[in-house]
Amino acid sequence: MPNAAERLSALRAELTARGLAGFVVPLTDEHMSEYVGEYAKRLEWLTGFTGSAGSAVVLADSAAIFVDGRYTLQVRDQVDGSLYEYQSVLETSPAQWLGERVGEGQKIGFDPWYHTRGWVEATRRTLAAKGAELVAVESNPVDAVWADQPKPPLDPILVHDDAYTGMSTEEKLAATGAAVGAAGANAAVIAALDSVAWLFNIRGTDVACTPVARAFALSFADGRAELFTEAEKITPAVTQALGDSVTVHPRERFADRLAELGAEKARVLVDPESTVFAVFERLEAAGAVIIEGRDPCVMPKAIKNPVEIAGSRAAHIRDGVALSRFLHWLHIEAPKGTVTELDADARLLSLRQEANLFRDVSFPAITGAGPNGAIVHYRSTPKTNRPLKVGELFLIDSGGQYLDGTTDVTRTVAVGTAGAEERDRFTRVLKGHIALATARFPSGTTGRQLDALARLPLWLAGLDYDHGTGHGVGSYLSVHEGPQRIGKTVNDTVLTPGMILSNEPGYYKTGAYGIRIENLVLTHEDRREGDERPMLAFETLTMAPIDLALVEPRLLTPEEKDWLNAYHRRVIETLAPLVPEDTRGWLAAATRPL
Amino acid sequence: MPNAAERLSALRAELTARGLAGFVVPLTDEHMSEYVGEYAKRLEWLTGFTGSAGSAVVLADSAAIFVDGRYTLQVRDQVDGSLYEYQSVLETSPAQWLGERVGEGQKIGFDPWYHTRGWVEATRRTLAAKGAELVAVESNPVDAVWADQPKPPLDPILVHDDAYTGMSTEEKLAATGAAVGAAGANAAVIAALDSVAWLFNIRGTDVACTPVARAFALSFADGRAELFTEAEKITPAVTQALGDSVTVHPRERFADRLAELGAEKARVLVDPESTVFAVFERLEAAGAVIIEGRDPCVMPKAIKNPVEIAGSRAAHIRDGVALSRFLHWLHIEAPKGTVTELDADARLLSLRQEANLFRDVSFPAITGAGPNGAIVHYRSTPKTNRPLKVGELFLIDSGGQYLDGTTDVTRTVAVGTAGAEERDRFTRVLKGHIALATARFPSGTTGRQLDALARLPLWLAGLDYDHGTGHGVGSYLSVHEGPQRIGKTVNDTVLTPGMILSNEPGYYKTGAYGIRIENLVLTHEDRREGDERPMLAFETLTMAPIDLALVEPRLLTPEEKDWLNAYHRRVIETLAPLVPEDTRGWLAAATRPL
Repeated sequence: MPNAAERLSALRAELTARGLAGFVVPLTDEHMSEYVGEYAKRLEWLTGFTGSAGSAVVLADSAAIFVDGRYTLQVRDQVDGSLYEYQSVLETSPAQWLGERVGEGQKIGFDPWYHTRGWVEATRRTLAAKGAELVAVESNPVDAVWADQPKPPLDPILVHDDAYTGMSTEEKLAATGAAVGAAGANAAVIAALDSVAWLFNIRGTDVACTPVARAFALSFADGRAELFTEAEKITPAVTQALGDSVTVHPRERFADRLAELGAEKARVLVDPESTVFAVFERLEAAGAVIIEGRDPCVMPKAIKNPVEIAGSRAAHIRDGVALSRFLHWLHIEAPKGTVTELDADARLLSLRQEANLFRDVSFPAITGAGPNGAIVHYRSTPKTNRPLKVGELFLIDSGGQYLDGTTDVTRTVAVGTAGAEERDRFTRVLKGHIALATARFPSGTTGRQLDALARLPLWLAGLDYDHGTGHGVGSYLSVHEGPQRIGKTVNDTVLTPGMILSNEPGYYKTGAYGIRIENLVLTHEDRREGDERPMLAFETLTMAPIDLALVEPRLLTPEEKDWLNAYHRRVIETLAPLVPEDTRGWLAAATRPL
Repeated sequence: MPNAAERLSALRAELTARGLAGFVVPLTDEHMSEYVGEYAKRLEWLTGFTGSAGSAVVLADSAAIFVDGRYTLQVRDQVDGSLYEYQSVLETSPAQWLGERVGEGQKIGFDPWYHTRGWVEATRRTLAAKGAELVAVESNPVDAVWADQPKPPLDPILVHDDAYTGMSTEEKLAATGAAVGAAGANAAVIAALDSVAWLFNIRGTDVACTPVARAFALSFADGRAELFTEAEKITPAVTQALGDSVTVHPRERFADRLAELGAEKARVLVDPESTVFAVFERLEAAGAVIIEGRDPCVMPKAIKNPVEIAGSRAAHIRDGVALSRFLHWLHIEAPKGTVTELDADARLLSLRQEANLFRDVSFPAITGAGPNGAIVHYRSTPKTNRPLKVGELFLIDSGGQYLDGTTDVTRTVAVGTAGAEERDRFTRVLKGHIALATARFPSGTTGRQLDALARLPLWLAGLDYDHGTGHGVGSYLSVHEGPQRIGKTVNDTVLTPGMILSNEPGYYKTGAYGIRIENLVLTHEDRREGDERPMLAFETLTMAPIDLALVEPRLLTPEEKDWLNAYHRRVIETLAPLVPEDTRGWLAAATRPL
């Protein structure tokens, strides 16, 4: 297998042969996915970088890799600094870096199936200002030099039963078609893989952690739809489930079909956030009228229906059984000093695998012992793997994909006795968590408005955390699902009954420890006597004890103690009948009232 | 004096003579001011409406007046519904209303000195879609039929001493000029009256409540400036204070001067929020390059310097003396049942007038007894005037213009004994007020992020209030000063040390009572041991007791009680030496620890 230097040389030779002065290598797929199939891991193959976000730019004499603050350390570990300059993407974007290096008349290549139109337009302007040109390649030059590149997966699409989705494909197509018509369009491009999965009630195994199948789709105002994917992926069961309103075409027909829509002068709704440049280009070149707007699946996917809500509650109970068994095991084993981060990860996975309807993890677990817990997006590797030690904290952020729901939960536990500072910090994080869990807010409120409630107890001590407080979560779909969000950054999505979000304030002390308490919550209408406004509130879905050894009761108000006791009562009452006898005893102690 | 019907007929005749199918009458002046001089009260003259925001549209056969929710009742009281349709501006804008009524080829007039460019462009598009045209008039047709229209005031400009401003005109011109240069401009139009006042350290009496003088200005990158105002307003003292860097021109020269800048192909910074359409039009027609951006005075005006901060603290103490004397008087007189809203207003004004450096009220006081307190922007009139009654609440929102600072304070008091519901609501409002008063937050936080802290105690009971939580306040300038704001609506201004804001949560029960607790607060750096981030906090400036008869101690946390006791201790310690003996005794009781 060639090494990184050889790979880079091969790519440079390929670029030269094509008359390109450089090329941009992003980390995504044709659907702007967060997790991608093996065939699309071009950045990892080229540079060795395995983080979840990043890109590289290769020029004849220089190259750079761009990552965000989460990966500052990891990129130095994985990527050869003599081949690639390390760049912080917030300080220098690939476009800026290129803008400082390109010369008059140079052509920089990009693959139009792997970038949004917004990125292309901004980068094109930057290069144009230097007399250089950003040019779309016909085929990806990395693929040309990646001899053993895996093929895109041809695994069969799976039918996701209406018993889990709560809405038939037919009903979804009618509702989505109506939305397409209401947007003044004849058709909509459905490019995001989780939207395709939601709309057709199908799932797949093409991408790690997210149960989606690679496919593009078109949804028409009249309720018909077309699905573009490899014929090998379509089983008779899928054909039957899709029904008469859906026509399946080979994936390679998609581009031509866009051109046909253009020739018909169709008005096509396209979501600029999830749709790549190539789609816009084909439509426009062929004469389609593009209506930029939100993918019509996004809101109904975010607002869970009663069947999905019931499924999520059930999945969280089974997930809670696995978690409680894990935490019990950890309570016994960790103080021995022999359990490592990777052991803990494996143990929790094996316990989840015993759960009914479990299919996969929803993301690679973060298992941070001691100082590793302070690395927000840490992923333990054999090289960094660390044993849990008495006197340290252990943070584990993990989740499962169950047929009836997706989970995402973080617990932080003390191994042995925790120090006073850790207890203070943990209790402040808990106070923020409780503030959100118990908040009531008027209809029309956004997650951005609520964010400070979760941070205030830390702010009062001059502390904060550098990540969002909550993200949306799918229903046996993406663990990070838009559009709702609780955070400091601009987000004007109104929180709506049926939306599931995480509630995950944290605190991180570099080189020492990390704390995060994460439950998933369901937004619901909350009518109480005397209310003068339509109010909403959150129902906590996650079921697992919060480590009382880290709670400083004197920092909690009576109402906060009430919440913690009530939550623990619900956990023990729900899980006691479902866990083994010995775990039951431990769980009773772990959920004792304060 | 002609009545409203005659005035409307006269205006219609004038429009017909000019070939106009209609005309738009806004409520502002050439500087987009909130409070305007008598000469500019065209909407009031025409329709009778005295609210602080609104507009009218007059067509040949129909007319409408547009107000927001605050004035729904008032407009019906003051404006003849047989002449003007009542429109809620949030539901129907003047442009929408016009768009449904204008015909092909019709011309609708507007005065280009009284509308922003944004308004003109949006309205023009709406009319164009109907084949109609929005045309700028050369002179205002209302003025043509308003026989006894007052002349714009020619009262002298007043020099505002450096002892209050903390920065000389010369220093401000240099700093503003540098900002103009940094924006890539040669000159900036300074159109907002409070910016002109701030920049030149001048004040005036041309507008009610806000001590500004009518003038336009140009600030140049080289530190020079030009002031455009009537020669009668310039005294020798003003000339001397302005110094050599400032050239004074007659106001009517302003438009020509814009044309000259255009002829020089100058790059001119113009703030679209405070600058009227006519200014843009003159500059563009003459060839100037317009750089849209924020008025360079806005940020330094919002961020008070140490002299302004000291002045504000001192003004708040004198204001607190007047307020305490007033509240003491009210405590004795109100239970007799003979004090009316207008009596209370007059009494407080007379006590403020005894204070050193007092010049004017900072806005017309809101004095709402019983159900009138529930009308958020209530203004008592002889017709609505109501006596304070035992068993009811009384809300008084008022402020003063002192040479060293502007105040704005609301107190709600119980006349006699308050009911349990009123105490519950008052205490929730107080909890929200305290949450903001005691908040600490990292550098970079906006007022929008903090808003929920003030609302949460009400939200938990299913309650809320329909106004912002905090607005900026000037230094012997506008009582509503941008750009910072604490509220639900979008505002991305970062709270910065030196900014003064109001902290004014409330609760209103229509037909019953209103509650608001408003103090002004100063944003400051707040460094404490153990802080890991640069933190900010608020210092409360307002000095006046909060009615303990309305506080339900059982709803307060120990920390909230501590804040209230500490605040009252500061009030009594500060004011005791300054108030008359009898008030001192009452104040000691009113500020007793809980």
